[in-house]
Amino acid sequence: MIELSLIGIGTGNPRHLTLQAIDTMNAADVIVIPRKGAGKDDLAGLRRAICETHLTGSTRLVEFDLPRRDATGPDYRAGVETWHDAIAATWEQTLRDALPSGGRAGFLVWGDPALYDSTMRIAGRLARRMEIRMEVIPGITAIAALTATHRIPLNRIGAPVLITTGRRLREEGWPAGTGSLVVMLDGDCSFRCLDPRGILIWWAAYAGMPQEIRLAGPLSDTAAQIVAARAEARARHGWIMDIYLLRRESA
Amino acid sequence: MIELSLIGIGTGNPRHLTLQAIDTMNAADVIVIPRKGAGKDDLAGLRRAICETHLTGSTRLVEFDLPRRDATGPDYRAGVETWHDAIAATWEQTLRDALPSGGRAGFLVWGDPALYDSTMRIAGRLARRMEIRMEVIPGITAIAALTATHRIPLNRIGAPVLITTGRRLREEGWPAGTGSLVVMLDGDCSFRCLDPRGILIWWAAYAGMPQEIRLAGPLSDTAAQIVAARAEARARHGWIMDIYLLRRESA
Ligand SMILES: C[S@@+](CC[C@H](N)C(=O)[O-])C[C@H]1O[C@@H](n2cnc3c(N)ncnc32)[C@H](O)[C@@H]1O
Ligand SMILES: C[S@@+](CC[C@H](N)C(=O)[O-])C[C@H]1O[C@@H](n2cnc3c(N)ncnc32)[C@H](O)[C@@H]1O
Repeated sequence: MIELSLIGIGTGNPRHLTLQAIDTMNAADVIVIPRKGAGKDDLAGLRRAICETHLTGSTRLVEFDLPRRDATGPDYRAGVETWHDAIAATWEQTLRDALPSGGRAGFLVWGDPALYDSTMRIAGRLARRMEIRMEVIPGITAIAALTATHRIPLNRIGAPVLITTGRRLREEGWPAGTGSLVVMLDGDCSFRCLDPRGILIWWAAYAGMPQEIRLAGPLSDTAAQIVAARAEARARHGWIMDIYLLRRESA
Repeated sequence: MIELSLIGIGTGNPRHLTLQAIDTMNAADVIVIPRKGAGKDDLAGLRRAICETHLTGSTRLVEFDLPRRDATGPDYRAGVETWHDAIAATWEQTLRDALPSGGRAGFLVWGDPALYDSTMRIAGRLARRMEIRMEVIPGITAIAALTATHRIPLNRIGAPVLITTGRRLREEGWPAGTGSLVVMLDGDCSFRCLDPRGILIWWAAYAGMPQEIRLAGPLSDTAAQIVAARAEARARHGWIMDIYLLRRESA
């Protein structure tokens, strides 16, 4: 029996770690670290540094190479499902090697494990291959990192907020009835597909990290600045993660 | 000049505290703790315990009585605005007394300071009364605590999530085009206003706390159980905080 702990670690600031995350890391026999390979947001280094700082007992690190996703297929969902199966197979192998007679394995999950992250779903697939128990340790989300650096509330008083993706924003435009919109997983500055009139944007890349950048203002003035800043930062660092809040001035 | 730190502390589990929150608490000259009075969710005790455990230097605690909100007026927003003004006045007095020549003051904010919380807005009002600088330290949200205890993703793959309030759900019903819905600030089990067919619910009260309770299942079967469990728990503890995720089976 393997006990899996999916441990939210926040969004790149090692001080985002919670005490519960540190407790859980130290209770694990192994921490499993995926390597994404060069040219990706290879954050294995950050995970290793977190372990080095906070592991005080006999917990071991185990690394594995993350299978690559075939992003060429026409069906996004089917491509993701195949990829998750491949990752679950790699996890199984890694865990059987590292913990042949069972034990506790911790996975350090970016941000919070429930938000646009596949680790929980991969664990579900793993559960069809071997006996596991799973627990989830909540983490600081990129949404909280975004609003903290801009020092703004996520919602207007008593009003709703929609969390969505760049793809959805491009395909469906501004969702009806929504005053505040958080956009994640956007490789394309999809805010450019909107009529900018009356929309405010708060944007951050690498939120919480030393290389953090942020821009905010009316979308009409700010969009071009963000596009330029994003391209420049991405070229310089080799990868980027960004997130933004959009709000209708009137809504 | 006062430097205000609004410090997210998570949702009642003292191990939700981040290292950054602890650093910021210790960098403060005073931590300001509001007292809500009997019969409320008076979490001053939890805030005091957090300070006792984590303050290692000379940071002092200062307490003040939170003005009461007049919830009888017909205009919810106007009532809230008046109340926030009264709180800002109390803060001003408390800070001038505690830090007559300026310094750093920390406020321990439930969950994350950006999510359905008025502390940032009150700080904005305070800024019209005295010179302040503000920083925000992100925290674990009740949303993350809910999904962690149920070990479920917040979103379907690549799909959006709406965060809303009980009041909105009652007034507007299920929002069009939404598959996943988080409901907060709901004193009324507002899920009862929905046609339950095809809806799943994951509910938690006191998420992350020792008295945590959770229920999940098809809304048709689970709604009555939640209503009963909520009433019982509320009577027993004198207060309750609960949150839930609703998902359409098909969406
Ligand atoms: C796969 S999702 C993971 C989200 C994560 N589980 C969380 O709770 O924030 C990755 C997306 O999160 C956002 N993101 C994560 N970390 C970020 C950071 N440090 N700065 C800006 N955006 C970030 C970006 O929108 C990115 O495309
Ligand atoms: C004023 S809002 C504050 C939210 C907080 N800032 C956060 O980040 O979660 C209070 C609402 O949050 C939710 N909540 C906060 N703590 C909770 C807990 N421990 N368990 C369940 N719900 C909680 C409830 O919906 C409650 O009505």
